[in-house]
Amino acid sequence: KDTYQITLLPGDGIGPEIMSSCKDVLGALQKRCGFTLEMKEALIGGVAIDEAGDPFPDESLEQCLKSDSVLLSCIGGYKVNYNTLPYIAALLPLPIYSLINIHTLICYMIVQWDSNPRELRPETGLLKMRKSMGLFANLRPAKVLSQLIDASTLKREVVEGVDVMVVRELTGDVYFGTPKGIDVVDGKRVGYNNMIYDETEIERIARVAGDVASKRGGKLCSVDKANVLDVSQLWRDVVTDVITKDFPDVELSHMYVDNAAMQLIRWPKQFDTMVTGNIFGDILSDEASMLVGSLGMLPSASIGESGPGVFEPCHGSAPDIAGQDKANPLALILSAAMMLRYDLDRAEEADILEKAVEAVLDQGLRTADIKQEGDGCKLVGCIEMGKAVADIV
Amino acid sequence: KDTYQITLLPGDGIGPEIMSSCKDVLGALQKRCGFTLEMKEALIGGVAIDEAGDPFPDESLEQCLKSDSVLLSCIGGYKVNYNTLPYIAALLPLPIYSLINIHTLICYMIVQWDSNPRELRPETGLLKMRKSMGLFANLRPAKVLSQLIDASTLKREVVEGVDVMVVRELTGDVYFGTPKGIDVVDGKRVGYNNMIYDETEIERIARVAGDVASKRGGKLCSVDKANVLDVSQLWRDVVTDVITKDFPDVELSHMYVDNAAMQLIRWPKQFDTMVTGNIFGDILSDEASMLVGSLGMLPSASIGESGPGVFEPCHGSAPDIAGQDKANPLALILSAAMMLRYDLDRAEEADILEKAVEAVLDQGLRTADIKQEGDGCKLVGCIEMGKAVADIV
Ligand SMILES: CC(C)[C@H](C(=O)O)[C@@H](O)C(=O)O
Ligand SMILES: CC(C)[C@H](C(=O)O)[C@@H](O)C(=O)O
Repeated sequence: KDTYQITLLPGDGIGPEIMSSCKDVLGALQKRCGFTLEMKEALIGGVAIDEAGDPFPDESLEQCLKSDSVLLSCIGGYKVNYNTLPYIAALLPLPIYSLINIHTLICYMIVQWDSNPRELRPETGLLKMRKSMGLFANLRPAKVLSQLIDASTLKREVVEGVDVMVVRELTGDVYFGTPKGIDVVDGKRVGYNNMIYDETEIERIARVAGDVASKRGGKLCSVDKANVLDVSQLWRDVVTDVITKDFPDVELSHMYVDNAAMQLIRWPKQFDTMVTGNIFGDILSDEASMLVGSLGMLPSASIGESGPGVFEPCHGSAPDIAGQDKANPLALILSAAMMLRYDLDRAEEADILEKAVEAVLDQGLRTADIKQEGDGCKLVGCIEMGKAVADIV
Repeated sequence: KDTYQITLLPGDGIGPEIMSSCKDVLGALQKRCGFTLEMKEALIGGVAIDEAGDPFPDESLEQCLKSDSVLLSCIGGYKVNYNTLPYIAALLPLPIYSLINIHTLICYMIVQWDSNPRELRPETGLLKMRKSMGLFANLRPAKVLSQLIDASTLKREVVEGVDVMVVRELTGDVYFGTPKGIDVVDGKRVGYNNMIYDETEIERIARVAGDVASKRGGKLCSVDKANVLDVSQLWRDVVTDVITKDFPDVELSHMYVDNAAMQLIRWPKQFDTMVTGNIFGDILSDEASMLVGSLGMLPSASIGESGPGVFEPCHGSAPDIAGQDKANPLALILSAAMMLRYDLDRAEEADILEKAVEAVLDQGLRTADIKQEGDGCKLVGCIEMGKAVADIV
């Protein structure tokens, strides 16, 4: 097979600009390696709410399911609605200009999707995508790049060589558990969500984690709160069964989530692969990625039993720098590499991409997020960074 | 009032030895300041399981409730049962000595309470104590001591001056929510716990947090996962209501828990007071205390609407160094200072204790956990450290 259908989800904030850089890079890669990526865009997030009234419209889902793989930038945050600019500009010469703060006026230009009802928020689209595509396993590597060690707030000797893979369950837990809601009981509002896992959900994520660990350092740490939670007790029992039976060579340990949050800071090198539930994984994978100090460099993969996976950077949509050619496209480019490796079985091409990213760092190119004072490197924008990678590819 | 009833809960592991040092210090303080602490011990944790068949026996609860305040060391871990030593020693000369690993033999001497059924685990005693004494607010300061900055794994410029107070809700959330359990549904095991808060629970912790924030830097950051969870949405709404209405001078912000886990590492100085639910607070307060790099120095307070509070170090029972005079008693001594301040209204005496702790650090005394290679300080044990503090008091 040498032609692949790829759905691109540019999303919100800096999403479109990093996607554009990434497309250029993938274009160059196709030419060099003689295979074809038929890339087609679809809507998700705030832009989907604005254009289709749904944060993940059915057309997007269908298109994703038909593809060989999906590449997602980032979603959410807010957007500046320049359509209202003429009205604001028209008001400026009026006397009220002096009465109303210019900042207040500008605020009218900002669309905050977060204040929408839940079904019209960008995050809801993301959750719908994960659930409807069956993406139950989220792989989030937190690997320190030697070129960027000093970007970490942790001491060099603590982060040097850190290479942790967090395997997070993505379609269960308190994220999707029912019953849930906000009710009024005896005149008091009560909010609740069910933290729930059944054994098949735990088994399949344990298998993915066992597999990942066996291809890495062979060490798996399962994180839970089994000293307090029944759901964690089941988690611990099932993970233990699966790993000892099906992955006898993987060295399994267990850790409570509060301790894991500490140990990641105390001595992150003790970890190889970690596996945990959806909400603990949300917290710990973000903590782990901040350790390495270069969130703008970290890719992630969300995969299911079969069918296309979704590959996306760990960073958010950074609306404050959107449209200013300041974003770092490298995490998305590395996500594309993960896509090539995991979904398209193109390990060679994945290597080429990853090496190209290392090469631009070695050349001393840095976007603002990874530029350190006095590092002697050259500050570049999103477009220039993308071009540099494409040139090497 | 100048006589107070204090219940001491020495607990497990290093608990008894740090409690003994702390008693000496409190003894010296009484002499100097002319007030009387009538201290009486009670059982909690593993030792309570072994001696009374209950991790928090009713007698302990009654005694705590009758006191003016409660001082707790730490619970859980494991203990080495020296009673079995003669049997093991008797086996050693036999030929099986060469067959059985000596390590395996020693393992028979270890009592692991963690493998008990849930109602006979040390943690269950702690949870029972919190719930039955109505200790809904847990205050956990994470303050960097200038003498110990280099003990942190974070860079000096990142942690210097960090002073965060985490206010954690302690008697609600998924810790105590029902329904909960492990059931078999359609032949599959399902584990579940209910993440639940009602508005009065949120209101009262918000009030404590508002009060704490207004006495500190005036900034409060409430942490939740309102973009996904209904219970967090209610949390956010109620916290906003309480703070804007009753604490107009407190500057309130909201942060998602995954982002908070990152921001604590990226730039902890942005935080003054944080407030969050039980499970997020468990994770974030441990993360925050590890940031400052001297867990052995951090006290905590658990308080209710009225009645005695419980004051305890943030660290665990460290069974690996128990009984070896290596433990650091300073966190417990600082917890006693919090007790004097919050429960006994003895701010002056609290100050004396806190200054005495700073003074022994300035003298260059260090227990192993806070000793840094090449810091030129003197390594001391638990007893010597306690004596040094008592001498200054
Ligand atoms: C945006 C949010 C719903 C999402 C999550 O909590 O899963 C995000 O934090 C992530 O980690 O992908
Ligand atoms: C021991 C455990 C039940 C407890 C908790 O989770 O509350 C501990 O981690 C703590 O923070 O005091």
